[in-house]
Amino acid sequence: MTMDVTFLGTGSAYPSPHRGASALVLRSEGDCWLFDCGEGTQTQLMKSQIRAGLLCTINLTSDPQPGVKCVDVFGPRGLRHFLRVTLGLTGSQLLFPYAVHELEPTQDQSPEEGQLSLELTAERSPPLPQERPGRNISLDVSSETYFLFEDDKFVVKAFRLFHRVPSFGFCVQERDRPGRLKTERLQQLGLKPGPLYGRLKAGHQVQLENGRVILPDEVLEEDIPGRKVCILGDCSSVPGGGLAVCRGADLLVHEATLGEAHGDKAVEHGHSTPGMAAAVTRACGARRLALYHFSQRYKPEKLCQDGDDDVSELRRQAEDVLQGDDVEVILAEDFLTIDIPLRRTKSSTL
Amino acid sequence: MTMDVTFLGTGSAYPSPHRGASALVLRSEGDCWLFDCGEGTQTQLMKSQIRAGLLCTINLTSDPQPGVKCVDVFGPRGLRHFLRVTLGLTGSQLLFPYAVHELEPTQDQSPEEGQLSLELTAERSPPLPQERPGRNISLDVSSETYFLFEDDKFVVKAFRLFHRVPSFGFCVQERDRPGRLKTERLQQLGLKPGPLYGRLKAGHQVQLENGRVILPDEVLEEDIPGRKVCILGDCSSVPGGGLAVCRGADLLVHEATLGEAHGDKAVEHGHSTPGMAAAVTRACGARRLALYHFSQRYKPEKLCQDGDDDVSELRRQAEDVLQGDDVEVILAEDFLTIDIPLRRTKSSTL
Repeated sequence: MTMDVTFLGTGSAYPSPHRGASALVLRSEGDCWLFDCGEGTQTQLMKSQIRAGLLCTINLTSDPQPGVKCVDVFGPRGLRHFLRVTLGLTGSQLLFPYAVHELEPTQDQSPEEGQLSLELTAERSPPLPQERPGRNISLDVSSETYFLFEDDKFVVKAFRLFHRVPSFGFCVQERDRPGRLKTERLQQLGLKPGPLYGRLKAGHQVQLENGRVILPDEVLEEDIPGRKVCILGDCSSVPGGGLAVCRGADLLVHEATLGEAHGDKAVEHGHSTPGMAAAVTRACGARRLALYHFSQRYKPEKLCQDGDDDVSELRRQAEDVLQGDDVEVILAEDFLTIDIPLRRTKSSTL
Repeated sequence: MTMDVTFLGTGSAYPSPHRGASALVLRSEGDCWLFDCGEGTQTQLMKSQIRAGLLCTINLTSDPQPGVKCVDVFGPRGLRHFLRVTLGLTGSQLLFPYAVHELEPTQDQSPEEGQLSLELTAERSPPLPQERPGRNISLDVSSETYFLFEDDKFVVKAFRLFHRVPSFGFCVQERDRPGRLKTERLQQLGLKPGPLYGRLKAGHQVQLENGRVILPDEVLEEDIPGRKVCILGDCSSVPGGGLAVCRGADLLVHEATLGEAHGDKAVEHGHSTPGMAAAVTRACGARRLALYHFSQRYKPEKLCQDGDDDVSELRRQAEDVLQGDDVEVILAEDFLTIDIPLRRTKSSTL
């Protein structure tokens, strides 16, 4: 039931020796999902001791497996073309299948000059042998989200971010789980531990030998609410109502490229300040805010010397905006891991 | 007159925390040339304290300059397309012009399955605003080289390497310089220091007031021979007679991906062993051999622990083959700088 986020890099635009380019991993019970993979992500991943690989490294470090799963890659329209050209021209022969699922940007998420023409993004070469068909995902106009993925544990959606070029935010929503069994009550009812416990926990009713029917609600504590993590990379705002999907997030990860003193420059380049990130946090009622994606002018706190820009000032600027709200502000650093604990009950979410 | 080579990375295939992907810089009197830039080169460059930048970083760290020079990029056919797609799809707006000069591979430098079809490498989108016309460079069949660049100090050529996909070696040849003026002889002739010294040094004859004509050869020591550095990245051999251009190199930088115990695997993947690199060194009579481009299984000497593959064994394997030759074998490590001293006279080259 553990869930955590590890920052592989926290720098904006390009990597430097003291701050990798932005990238993070969300882990939950053995699953690893990579978000926002900037240049150098794989080296940072190796340093982090998290076991996962990127496309070409998976190849070199693993034997081909007959039943290997398809690697799903999600990103803006044009990503399929990008991968065909880069993998094709470098002669990279992947030993596993991959599929690219492209999100169709809308015109209101970047200035006109940043919009990628259909001509630029269309696949002009045939699929590589290892490419499997991917989805072309359009905005669901009613929810203002893109549906990416769901299984029995998670639902993952994307939403539009406003940036110099089309950018997307991601929302990973864990499903609610049934609460714990009230063992005392079960014993009162004369039910001993065994397979029937499992059936009740799975939401099925159960009949005792004496004919008494037990409903799951009688013997289960309140549902354990699923956790929600939202990741907002390159952006200066969230267009339309896309932010609704982040409502009540346990953790909001938001870019904060430049401090308030450089607010105009941040917005001009499609980026945010800590204050802007804090305003988004307040707007969606998130419980914790992790700032990342800092200009390389901000060195990590432990490397800061007199006269350097002070990265901890960025945290203070977010805290100023969130004064009075019960929100924890975290300054991400490379390899920081943030645990996302379970909430006990729905009522504790507010 | 200084000239040196700095390794920014020495790893094969992909970067790791203990060994960056292969890349090196050749410096000479303020000029910086980058060769063989693997993933993560710019972070390694920042760590190295060498002042140079890659395409997108040059942008962010420098103000646009009206008279900025064009950045010349040399590489295999397909590189122009690669850059248009990657810069175009990421919306990278370079603040300086660049030109891509493509080397046309031949069929005998990679196995059939590694040859990139014309369909795959052709530019299918228009040039970016900052792209300037580049040359398409074909093999000069008489010299078996590709002519890349020359100025008053250097001539740079490429030659074919055999690899899984087309790969190229590079030869930087410094031009010979006139020897020092024999000041004693000049004084005997009655010529005092002044502009005439410069004319003689530049190779012009000079007439004294008494009518006596002095030829440069009378008063100049022997020419100072230009230095030669050759760089052979990904390869398992040098097809045809391309190696002739490396004759008498002051420094030969050669890949050595795997030790002799894994020779078959090295060749199968288009790579070399130290012994193969040593044989190339002997064949062209180079004076020093620097091995680089090691499999990530070989950690740097200072990080090696019991049971690890021993990288220093790779040096010994090259030395074994070169026994009896007066060749220094250097094991490159990330950030190692190798100085290339001037040779006094032609005769000292053999």
